[in-house]
Amino acid sequence: MTEKLGARELDLLFREARTHNGWTGEDVADATIEAIFDLAKMGPTSANCSPMRVVFIRSQEAKERLKPHLMEGNVEKTMNAPVVAIFANDTKFYEHLPKLFPHTDAKSWFEGNDALIAETASRNGTLQAAYFMLAARALGVDCGPMSGFNQKGVNAEFFPDGRFKVNFICNLGHGDPEQLFDRSPRFAFDEACEIL
Amino acid sequence: MTEKLGARELDLLFREARTHNGWTGEDVADATIEAIFDLAKMGPTSANCSPMRVVFIRSQEAKERLKPHLMEGNVEKTMNAPVVAIFANDTKFYEHLPKLFPHTDAKSWFEGNDALIAETASRNGTLQAAYFMLAARALGVDCGPMSGFNQKGVNAEFFPDGRFKVNFICNLGHGDPEQLFDRSPRFAFDEACEIL
Repeated sequence: MTEKLGARELDLLFREARTHNGWTGEDVADATIEAIFDLAKMGPTSANCSPMRVVFIRSQEAKERLKPHLMEGNVEKTMNAPVVAIFANDTKFYEHLPKLFPHTDAKSWFEGNDALIAETASRNGTLQAAYFMLAARALGVDCGPMSGFNQKGVNAEFFPDGRFKVNFICNLGHGDPEQLFDRSPRFAFDEACEIL
Repeated sequence: MTEKLGARELDLLFREARTHNGWTGEDVADATIEAIFDLAKMGPTSANCSPMRVVFIRSQEAKERLKPHLMEGNVEKTMNAPVVAIFANDTKFYEHLPKLFPHTDAKSWFEGNDALIAETASRNGTLQAAYFMLAARALGVDCGPMSGFNQKGVNAEFFPDGRFKVNFICNLGHGDPEQLFDRSPRFAFDEACEIL
């Protein structure tokens, strides 16, 4: 018989998990961050290209470097989060393919093809960031992902040599349910899908 | 105490899950496909924009429409999969924001800003496709995602009016472990991450 998750686990990952705006005082340990990454990295990427790089902001000093680049509505919740993940993509991910995809010369598929590089980094880095958020939930850590920040500012501050480019950022912590907004509606299956 | 998933569930979602190349004869019911979508749609997207649209290919007729656009190495496993998901993004996702994000005029953030529309559709549609694959695994369905196909050909065949654009495709079924490749290496935490 096929293995499946139970209702409690599906609630934890999908149905009752929420994007959090406020946080309890509970910390997220470095060991937990590593454990989340070690789950997320196992998810599939094209040719195992694994372009996601993450800078985790924990110290007050690093938070102050991030703060001026946040949209106003995102400042308080981000400054109050125990940890903030800056999900970035390596624009030269293909240089690692001899290690990550050793059985063929996948590096040559990308070298010199800037459009393919950009598309592959973006798609696969975003897949990995989604795996990361679900792995965080699986380990009992709540997420607050955001696109509301100045990309150029974050890139200049944290990735000045230009090789890594920020994708989006995500607060990590233990959410305070009192500070949740109402859940927004979702599409019914037939509004977004069809079976041919 | 914080709820977490157990080791068996983490194996099922991340550690032992694999990208499959061959399939047992077991089908994936339409009800299972709907249940996967209904989990995946609960995952977070920016302003709840939910740009992913999915065409599920089940019939032989629909598979024949897809076949000429696949890279040669992807033909056999895709034709043999019980179902193939074509993950696409709605380039006019913002038209649904009055329904999906009703408490503010989010539609106006996007109208006329083609660069923001493209980036938002791509990032959030890809997040949703990742949620879908992990939801599939959570319900005991194996995935075989692929970027190896002709995007223009798939768009012309399945989305001729140009509003939806294919992102990637993914076989769905019950994987045959005999047809797995060896697992490729992943980065250690310190190779891809830092904590500031």
